[in-house]
Amino acid sequence: MDLDSVAKAFVDHYYTTFDNHRVNLVGLYQDGSMLTFEGEKIMGAQNISAKLNGLPFQQCKHNISTVDCQPSASVGGVIVFVSGSLQLPGEEHMLKFSQMFHLLPTQGSFYVFNDIFRLNYA
Amino acid sequence: MDLDSVAKAFVDHYYTTFDNHRVNLVGLYQDGSMLTFEGEKIMGAQNISAKLNGLPFQQCKHNISTVDCQPSASVGGVIVFVSGSLQLPGEEHMLKFSQMFHLLPTQGSFYVFNDIFRLNYA
Repeated sequence: MDLDSVAKAFVDHYYTTFDNHRVNLVGLYQDGSMLTFEGEKIMGAQNISAKLNGLPFQQCKHNISTVDCQPSASVGGVIVFVSGSLQLPGEEHMLKFSQMFHLLPTQGSFYVFNDIFRLNYA
Repeated sequence: MDLDSVAKAFVDHYYTTFDNHRVNLVGLYQDGSMLTFEGEKIMGAQNISAKLNGLPFQQCKHNISTVDCQPSASVGGVIVFVSGSLQLPGEEHMLKFSQMFHLLPTQGSFYVFNDIFRLNYA
């Protein structure tokens, strides 16, 4: 599978899981994983899962605008860069966001090592 | 120097150089460096420099809104994630952008291994 296909498959899986079964995101992280969410640094799969599942909305819908990827400096690693918008319940306007992931290979699949998320305020 | 200081110093240096002596950006990349600029993939310091210096504006001004950083999976490597806006000559409105860099250590300093840039259209 080429890098673009890996990136697109990951992005599709990540945001579908986020929007429908957010609790399952924990499986995409490991103990050494890092998330920086709107400037807040969180480390480790359990803490990252707690943060994402504790966000103050139950439902959301991500719409992806662009997906860019590059091989990383780690063997088999992939950098994925996403831009898009986020619809929250009861909110008329979409929130624009950017997010990057550094994926590392693990047992025939990938896990998220670096994850940085920012809303892009208009 | 802690990671946040490295990231802030790099971001300051990168955008000051971009806005004032864009030709000097070549020194921040190496042969294995990659830039994805608005979806276009460019490889190697010379090609990246040619792309950046060939952009159809002579002057610009970057304003940085947020800088996030994390250690990468490579020894001494740093992931830097930037959001901000870009003012072009004769344009009244600022263009919002997001950009990520993966910095790797080299001879007491850092060079850019991965670089992904996207405008965030409103």
